[in-house]
Amino acid sequence: MSPGSYDPVTNGHLDIITRGAEVFDEFIVTVMVNKNKKTMFTVEERVDMIREVTAHLPNVKVDSWQGLLVDYCKANDVKAMVKGLRAVSDFDYELQMAQMNHQLSGVETLFMPTNPLYSYLSSSLVKEVATYHGDVSHLLPKPVHERLIRRLAERA
Amino acid sequence: MSPGSYDPVTNGHLDIITRGAEVFDEFIVTVMVNKNKKTMFTVEERVDMIREVTAHLPNVKVDSWQGLLVDYCKANDVKAMVKGLRAVSDFDYELQMAQMNHQLSGVETLFMPTNPLYSYLSSSLVKEVATYHGDVSHLLPKPVHERLIRRLAERA
Amino acid sequence: MSPGSYDPVTNGHLDIITRGAEVFDEFIVTVMVNKNKKTMFTVEERVDMIREVTAHLPNVKVDSWQGLLVDYCKANDVKAMVKGLRAVSDFDYELQMAQMNHQLSGVETLFMPTNPLYSYLSSSLVKEVATYHGDVSHLLPKPVHERLIRRLAERA
Amino acid sequence: MSPGSYDPVTNGHLDIITRGAEVFDEFIVTVMVNKNKKTMFTVEERVDMIREVTAHLPNVKVDSWQGLLVDYCKANDVKAMVKGLRAVSDFDYELQMAQMNHQLSGVETLFMPTNPLYSYLSSSLVKEVATYHGDVSHLLPKPVHERLIRRLAERA
Amino acid sequence: MSPGSYDPVTNGHLDIITRGAEVFDEFIVTVMVNKNKKTMFTVEERVDMIREVTAHLPNVKVDSWQGLLVDYCKANDVKAMVKGLRAVSDFDYELQMAQMNHQLSGVETLFMPTNPLYSYLSSSLVKEVATYHGDVSHLLPKPVHERLIRRLAERA
Amino acid sequence: MSPGSYDPVTNGHLDIITRGAEVFDEFIVTVMVNKNKKTMFTVEERVDMIREVTAHLPNVKVDSWQGLLVDYCKANDVKAMVKGLRAVSDFDYELQMAQMNHQLSGVETLFMPTNPLYSYLSSSLVKEVATYHGDVSHLLPKPVHERLIRRLAERA
Repeated sequence: MSPGSYDPVTNGHLDIITRGAEVFDEFIVTVMVNKNKKTMFTVEERVDMIREVTAHLPNVKVDSWQGLLVDYCKANDVKAMVKGLRAVSDFDYELQMAQMNHQLSGVETLFMPTNPLYSYLSSSLVKEVATYHGDVSHLLPKPVHERLIRRLAERA
Repeated sequence: MSPGSYDPVTNGHLDIITRGAEVFDEFIVTVMVNKNKKTMFTVEERVDMIREVTAHLPNVKVDSWQGLLVDYCKANDVKAMVKGLRAVSDFDYELQMAQMNHQLSGVETLFMPTNPLYSYLSSSLVKEVATYHGDVSHLLPKPVHERLIRRLAERA
Repeated sequence: MSPGSYDPVTNGHLDIITRGAEVFDEFIVTVMVNKNKKTMFTVEERVDMIREVTAHLPNVKVDSWQGLLVDYCKANDVKAMVKGLRAVSDFDYELQMAQMNHQLSGVETLFMPTNPLYSYLSSSLVKEVATYHGDVSHLLPKPVHERLIRRLAERA
Repeated sequence: MSPGSYDPVTNGHLDIITRGAEVFDEFIVTVMVNKNKKTMFTVEERVDMIREVTAHLPNVKVDSWQGLLVDYCKANDVKAMVKGLRAVSDFDYELQMAQMNHQLSGVETLFMPTNPLYSYLSSSLVKEVATYHGDVSHLLPKPVHERLIRRLAERA
Repeated sequence: MSPGSYDPVTNGHLDIITRGAEVFDEFIVTVMVNKNKKTMFTVEERVDMIREVTAHLPNVKVDSWQGLLVDYCKANDVKAMVKGLRAVSDFDYELQMAQMNHQLSGVETLFMPTNPLYSYLSSSLVKEVATYHGDVSHLLPKPVHERLIRRLAERA
Repeated sequence: MSPGSYDPVTNGHLDIITRGAEVFDEFIVTVMVNKNKKTMFTVEERVDMIREVTAHLPNVKVDSWQGLLVDYCKANDVKAMVKGLRAVSDFDYELQMAQMNHQLSGVETLFMPTNPLYSYLSSSLVKEVATYHGDVSHLLPKPVHERLIRRLAERA
């Protein structure tokens, strides 16, 4: 299982999902809902986009959840999560979350190094660059890029 | 002296205070007031909780302060502060603050490594987990846990 | 070229600018405008202050820009940027920005280690300390310090 | 699969093996042979000790290998490795090895955070402390501790 | 100027040299001689290989030096060095060397982030993998790869 | 108490000792003997040099020890050690040692940030630079610098 806000899913996320789906029998991608954060896409839109770009991966399931991650894991009998790790600055925070989650429920967190090609990539950076009309077409799956361009046009 | 927001004091804080009180003759715990940050507990409540859970440590004093930390140190003739260090991500920020404070007033900052058992622990993470009804009873002193549960119930 | 918000320029910035101007034939200091962030000084004031404190450096030019940094670099034929690096915590974020910018436009980012004397120094820390009447006169060029004191007096 | 020198296996290793064996259907522990490094125990001894302390874990297999890790993975159809991650200083080196191995053979490396109780633990630190007669009985499985004490007595 | 042991020059080094030569008018690559370290190639061989793979870059010069780096800089009127930075673990050591060198002679060190494609790459890792017959042909310039294979064959 | 190899004591060490002696009633500097490491100065010479440069600090005592640090602490009733912390790369190793020592004996390790002026300074770097006739007179106390120059002359 791989949790995240996926606002929207990037090529970096897709790389982790694809590789995770090769290692595990079943791989769930879970969009975490955080009411306190403004997002560019609704939960439904984010789930839809992940479904569309992972349609060719039969053992990938897409889901969403509001609440504690560990409750999701218990409810769905998830033994382990997979998280992409880009850089050392991610590491400390992720390690603290992993230890807290393990401590609360026994769920394991496994870290998978990001493809170096995408080590500079994050959804928020992509949105910031796109807002200023920078070209991000190579950083997002094609249908996601089209939706982002449309969304920004609606807002302008 | 050990400054912090203590909103609320956790088992991790208590571990640092207990160990600090063994090393130094007198150990002051100072709740720092920051008007720009919303807190779950008032300054008085935070001071009260620390007093309650350190009552058995005769050389621990609890205080509060609004303003620059270095002014507190001057006013109270404090030569050194003790700060818990959980992880590398804490380190850079804390080091910058330590150098600034030393530069402004000559006060020293000594870092004490957090007990590994509490390395994933922070007041904000505890509050977030508790908000979603996760069990945090083993992360907080008993009276603090009871107050947190009550406060969350009042808010609901 | 060295981009930043410079709100206001500190002795740490001035150290990087001075050293950069010795290494490169022409050195541009560019105040980046970010409408989503509150600043203490207007863009014009920030540009003015940098001009004043770099007046003795003939190959330093001061400019401002709103939009993507890479668009500024293209419009001004800038091949490389110089950024001061204070600590490891700066490093990961800056590295991600550098890779993104190189990827978008081919512009290079070169990192210059901050003078250790200023490793604890940032504009926001200076403003915070000054707000509480801490002495920051040795952390800012003299005319910048005077403006900061005036600005804080106006606000009080 | 989890590679290492295991000279000897510690409680920290055993924690990773136990948790890994819960996440994966089959979990191989592979003692890597490095002729350029002096070891306290022979390869056979190291394999024996791991077998003894993992005897209760039916899906754990123990093996040894001399040569490139990626060749082992190819020969044994291993899709993923699991490595314990103690601290940031481990991270960079391990990340480089992971990217090199992925690049050479497609094998994935998944990082599992070490139990914070064992974050300070390494085989070499244990050997160093034991050499000076420090008590390390709580850091090693019981039969491993006995063998270490015997080995040190033989050498004295 | 970019110093290093270059034993041998890799695609990662070549990437830094190529990008450095675009930013600076003249770019010197200096093979540093360290008598206490065993190398696979002699100084002359290492210089030759760099000359061969940078022959198409007219503003690149190749040199060698035994002694303090800062003495080389003084003797050759070098104002700034360029070093590739792969990861945080490089950063601290390099920062200390940069500050020492600046302090001894005023020479500046500028860090250029490594292409993420080569972030896992080092001469020693390449030699280790090649020793065990791993394929490193895509990590080295073609003539360097051929020399490495020959050298390893001579030694076998 | 502050342990180290002090081969030889530098201005960075002296800064930590001076500041530590202001914070604690008694401050012991302990030269740790490690038979497996070649040193430039004998234990006696290293102790002598520290005594000489701390003669003006009445509450500083100088000692030496061969064996486990924790055994020294027990034998001398030391409750806490002070270690200088230069950079993040020091941090992880030192944190592991601190946790191991606390775990073995209850002794605390307190970290004191190095003066930024000396953040690039280490005994081994000083020796390396001096070997090549670089000027290190500002990095060492005067009598230590004289001894280092004599020692290098004897060896030449």
